[in-house]
Amino acid sequence: MRTCDIIKTKRDGGVLTRDEIRFFVNGCATGEIPDYQASALLMAVYLKGMTSRETADLTMAMADSGDKLDLSEIRGARVDKHSTGGVGDKTTLIVAPIVAACGVKVAKMSGRGLGHTGGTTDKLLSIPNLRVDFDKREFEEIVNRYGLCICGSSADLAPADKLLYSLRDVTATVDSVPLIAASIMSKKIAAGSKNLLLDVKVGSGAFMKTQAQARELAREMVEIGALEGLNVTALLTDMESPLGNAVGNSLEVIEAVNTLKGIGPDDLTELCVILSAHMLHLAGKGDLMECGEMARNAIFNGLAFERFVWMANAQSGDSGVLMDTARFRKAKFYRTFKARTDGYVQSIDAERCGTAAALLGAGRLRKEDDIDMAAGLVLEVKPGARVKAGDVVATMYAESESRFDAAEFELASAFAIESKPPEKRRLILDEITNVQ
Amino acid sequence: MRTCDIIKTKRDGGVLTRDEIRFFVNGCATGEIPDYQASALLMAVYLKGMTSRETADLTMAMADSGDKLDLSEIRGARVDKHSTGGVGDKTTLIVAPIVAACGVKVAKMSGRGLGHTGGTTDKLLSIPNLRVDFDKREFEEIVNRYGLCICGSSADLAPADKLLYSLRDVTATVDSVPLIAASIMSKKIAAGSKNLLLDVKVGSGAFMKTQAQARELAREMVEIGALEGLNVTALLTDMESPLGNAVGNSLEVIEAVNTLKGIGPDDLTELCVILSAHMLHLAGKGDLMECGEMARNAIFNGLAFERFVWMANAQSGDSGVLMDTARFRKAKFYRTFKARTDGYVQSIDAERCGTAAALLGAGRLRKEDDIDMAAGLVLEVKPGARVKAGDVVATMYAESESRFDAAEFELASAFAIESKPPEKRRLILDEITNVQ
Repeated sequence: MRTCDIIKTKRDGGVLTRDEIRFFVNGCATGEIPDYQASALLMAVYLKGMTSRETADLTMAMADSGDKLDLSEIRGARVDKHSTGGVGDKTTLIVAPIVAACGVKVAKMSGRGLGHTGGTTDKLLSIPNLRVDFDKREFEEIVNRYGLCICGSSADLAPADKLLYSLRDVTATVDSVPLIAASIMSKKIAAGSKNLLLDVKVGSGAFMKTQAQARELAREMVEIGALEGLNVTALLTDMESPLGNAVGNSLEVIEAVNTLKGIGPDDLTELCVILSAHMLHLAGKGDLMECGEMARNAIFNGLAFERFVWMANAQSGDSGVLMDTARFRKAKFYRTFKARTDGYVQSIDAERCGTAAALLGAGRLRKEDDIDMAAGLVLEVKPGARVKAGDVVATMYAESESRFDAAEFELASAFAIESKPPEKRRLILDEITNVQ
Repeated sequence: MRTCDIIKTKRDGGVLTRDEIRFFVNGCATGEIPDYQASALLMAVYLKGMTSRETADLTMAMADSGDKLDLSEIRGARVDKHSTGGVGDKTTLIVAPIVAACGVKVAKMSGRGLGHTGGTTDKLLSIPNLRVDFDKREFEEIVNRYGLCICGSSADLAPADKLLYSLRDVTATVDSVPLIAASIMSKKIAAGSKNLLLDVKVGSGAFMKTQAQARELAREMVEIGALEGLNVTALLTDMESPLGNAVGNSLEVIEAVNTLKGIGPDDLTELCVILSAHMLHLAGKGDLMECGEMARNAIFNGLAFERFVWMANAQSGDSGVLMDTARFRKAKFYRTFKARTDGYVQSIDAERCGTAAALLGAGRLRKEDDIDMAAGLVLEVKPGARVKAGDVVATMYAESESRFDAAEFELASAFAIESKPPEKRRLILDEITNVQ
């Protein structure tokens, strides 16, 4: 088998065999296939696509390229979730405790973020002393004892995916449906997921800008799951405006705490209940209506918040900040952003809000960058609100005043204010599942 | 300017600016742009193409990436030729002396072959002691004194092309019209060509399998030449069957000598006269009819052969082998190949003959391989011949008898013998020129 022939087949729009795909992935993982051949094939895949069978084979080859986590030591029903990422997406911090409080275990591996804000583990690390670096035994022990644990992802899981991902990043081959689907699913399969909820974000603040793209990605991932014996449901959810009000790291943890206490923003609360309901349903806890009811109850009876505090303690965190969020370290400076005209807030562009948060210090521009845990912004209004010129519509937080001007420029473009109220947007745009 | 954005533009079918192309080519030449980004762009170019303007910009950026040969020390009219390569193509060895004998100088740079047999310089090196490694001063001196010199190509000319070519070779991006056109023309421009005849081979033994592909490549190169002020004519010539009878290295030199003496195969003699006529015409020696007459005369009056002997002497070669070709070192073994049925030879597949010659030891399979100068094959008949089963139709030469079986297998597939005589094929399929 020659790498050049494999590249040629894909270049000409042909279909690769399972053996060819394994040969390629293993060759990349061992370094026998040089980067320049890998990137030529990635570009050919980008432009010529892959069949579902090829995508599934790519997924499994990458999942098999390193360790596979055997979480059989975890007792009872278990469910995992993955979000394709959006601005202000702190749902994992909320749904994991809700689901755990309802008796289904969540052993979640999360990556570091290279987006507008940190990833889930970065956000969690704003809780003083909290750890996310556990070995398998510790991870399983925390999950068995408290029902949940959020752990940083291991470099030993799907190493071929890490390698190819870093190549895609610098060769303009990131936004390819088969490559994204295989990347996500290989990590989830290597991490031992059996029941999996996928939150595929659609809109300006998401990777997938259109419903058609997002649906194609969702279908591909659900199909791979079916082929590999996983229960998978994918929800297409709106990401035109930021989710909730807070965009940042500790700012989002504070909002998650509020939501777990039943006093969070409506859109965030509603989405978290729906996501939790689907997760519980995937784990066999009942029909969606019953599961939704269970999730709602877990918020209102305080058990979900209690789980979050337990998890923070189990992960060595100082859970005092969760009991009294005023104790989180604060940004040195803040500046308000005001509406410039009267009218209804039509939309608040998620991508621009994300860029504003990154400019304030909340995100990493490069892998090696530090994140400012206290930086970010909080929206004071949501789309549909009626405002007057001069009303405060957002507050920015940063360690240095010099960061505000650039962020304010982004916010000015993010807010669209018009004379008529906007149409209400749906939170859930579609659902694709392989579970009956 | 970011490499990733350049890749993205081409990936999406966009047109690159001259600055972007220069940035890319220079980045590759200096090593600032890594191989994996270069190969991703090459694949995008392969699949999305390039406009003529982009191809011309790529050509000039590669030509400018290293030294440019200034051959202004060479006195009088000068012409260059380039063949895209075929099986049994020894025309340079014949047309260079013809053209020189007619008073037009030929300062030819040739690469080493990575095909079925060696390249032109490899073939020449079968003449004992002959050198092809000259510096500019020696090169110019030989050309001025004897009217011709065939020299190995310098690593300092168009180094970006060498780099990209070696990447294309292992990433299935070789047969792309803009990339081939830019590769050929950048080397010719860097080597100081002003009048250039391109012999674009078409058929089973050529790189371009169809006339449409070959015509596209020819047009592209002629157009680049026009943009850069070169006189360029491209001939599309047939390469379904090997050119002449000999396929090998010293075997082809012997056939070239015979052709220069007026006793060569008809097809080879005819093609060489036509190529020489076009070269003389490009150099301003008269109209095509007159130039054809001059070329024919140079063979029949012996002056062309004399030039070849002078050149061999000037390049330190032992020209005695040219005066008496029986003195060339012979292969240790030979084996005849016989017709298996009665009938007319319909076709002799050039590619299979090439593979047979390579299997006999005449070609390089890898860059570092040695070539067996005496190995190869000689066709005893040409398409159209009437044969009986058992007639010898080819003779194979090799250093080891173990090589014959595999080569014979190729030859058996190469010869198609049927009951009716074949249609006569034209040698010249088309002509494209920017010269009036």
